[in-house]
Amino acid sequence: MSLVVVGSMAFDALETPFGKTDKIVGGAATYISLSSSYFVKPVNVVSVVGGDFDQSHVELMHQRGISTEGMQVKENEKSFFWSGRYFNDMNSRETLVTELNVLGDFDPIIPDSYQGCEYLMLGNLAPQVQKTVIERLRNRPKLIVMDTMNFWMDIALDELKETIKLIDVLSINDEEARQLSGEYSLVKAAKKIMAMGPKFLIIKKGEHGALLFNEEKVFFAPALPLEEVFDPTGAGDTFAGGFIGYLASSGDISFESMKRAVIYGSAMASFCVEKFGTERLKNLTQEEIDGRVRQFVNLVAFDTVLQ
Amino acid sequence: MSLVVVGSMAFDALETPFGKTDKIVGGAATYISLSSSYFVKPVNVVSVVGGDFDQSHVELMHQRGISTEGMQVKENEKSFFWSGRYFNDMNSRETLVTELNVLGDFDPIIPDSYQGCEYLMLGNLAPQVQKTVIERLRNRPKLIVMDTMNFWMDIALDELKETIKLIDVLSINDEEARQLSGEYSLVKAAKKIMAMGPKFLIIKKGEHGALLFNEEKVFFAPALPLEEVFDPTGAGDTFAGGFIGYLASSGDISFESMKRAVIYGSAMASFCVEKFGTERLKNLTQEEIDGRVRQFVNLVAFDTVLQ
Repeated sequence: MSLVVVGSMAFDALETPFGKTDKIVGGAATYISLSSSYFVKPVNVVSVVGGDFDQSHVELMHQRGISTEGMQVKENEKSFFWSGRYFNDMNSRETLVTELNVLGDFDPIIPDSYQGCEYLMLGNLAPQVQKTVIERLRNRPKLIVMDTMNFWMDIALDELKETIKLIDVLSINDEEARQLSGEYSLVKAAKKIMAMGPKFLIIKKGEHGALLFNEEKVFFAPALPLEEVFDPTGAGDTFAGGFIGYLASSGDISFESMKRAVIYGSAMASFCVEKFGTERLKNLTQEEIDGRVRQFVNLVAFDTVLQ
Repeated sequence: MSLVVVGSMAFDALETPFGKTDKIVGGAATYISLSSSYFVKPVNVVSVVGGDFDQSHVELMHQRGISTEGMQVKENEKSFFWSGRYFNDMNSRETLVTELNVLGDFDPIIPDSYQGCEYLMLGNLAPQVQKTVIERLRNRPKLIVMDTMNFWMDIALDELKETIKLIDVLSINDEEARQLSGEYSLVKAAKKIMAMGPKFLIIKKGEHGALLFNEEKVFFAPALPLEEVFDPTGAGDTFAGGFIGYLASSGDISFESMKRAVIYGSAMASFCVEKFGTERLKNLTQEEIDGRVRQFVNLVAFDTVLQ
């Protein structure tokens, strides 16, 4: 049940209608590894940071059973930095600053201790880098889940299509599914995207929940109706971490198990948005997670009169 | 279990990305009564049409057990006419023509045979007209459900607030809930709106499903992921018809029963959008409706590992 997580570790500076932050720790691998650490240990991170990265955050990761042996530290360079501002509806945002820094020439290293991992989570990165990670694993993992973004559809579509041929589960949002497929209907989009390689597709719809498809079936998980979404940064990565973490802990990669994994991912994401950055993901209890999953169960539960 | 349905009966001319229609029969009372007729008989319609209305449609309603005794016919006037065009995403539309015609001075008449009805569905109309209907019923129905639109929030907010004080369930879409409450969060919006009178609130989110609130609980019903939405006209009214029709047939107006009613309403709406106008609502079978409800059950069903 070993898990390897690949992605950025970064600084983010955020503005939401509720306030703004200085540089705080963010990045796909940060959110994914924290979220999955509530389900499986060790979580093995492959990433790259600069000499400026926050050492106390790395210690927190270690305390949560996350290995950073595959995290390269480039002492004389700076960590990836992203700054963005959310609009009032919290569903749209604008990027203010993107500084690639160490991510610009990221050449992922897989420590020997990570070899033989059964579960691989490819967080949002250049598709060529994601592919390199797959190639550098000596045995193909039992399950490869991949997240990506419209950015790569715009500038590296061919490489993206090469990479998604190699994976099992693709996780993207609704607009990205439409862009990748050229179909407005998500049902049609799902068919076209699965024909590109992945046997499973997750379409994230933010506050409107998430859809899980395989060739024959579809499952829908709502998002919890929340009073406040404080900061949506990292919600998709936190979802992915809960999703693959649950699968790795259960060892069951059937469609039925993936449904439960989508619910656990949604529950983790619902915590993430309650505070700025990773704050809410640092000290969750099993009771809190189980309680949140129960809220999902109750949200959609009804008895039918059908036999 | 008698049901009275109030609303427009009209001609619509529609343009969607899939084609356009000449004048076809539409209107809130048309969709609501057809949809509810699959659950309860008689459905008693209160409406007004001109001498130009389609008599064959009235005969279809009679065949489906719908009474039109409360439908006034103004022989020398014209029926309400609405023309609109849907954009590619089918979630937004523009109004091309609105001709109020007979609806301009609609003074609803409640036939004696309708008195004593237990269920009242107030379809979208001027709030003052909706209020008049309540006042003209000698006994207050067991359950009053009301639909309205942003149009009335813009031009008749005070009358709207007076009317919603008198009802049990308000059914509006997400943008209307935000406009009426001044809150972006739907959870906060729901609290404010229920404080205005209704004990229950339904927030319709189109392709993203519907939320049902009471003071303490929330229930979420997804919309079916469909390959094609052919024509969304009347989907909200069809939902309302299935909702109140199911409640009237069961006689149970508890929150648990309303959850099932939301699922039946969603199932009926999923048929409505498959063809232009009321076409798909004319000849459904019980097997088709039950099959559709089963799809909703399966869409959200998962087993948890929680005890």
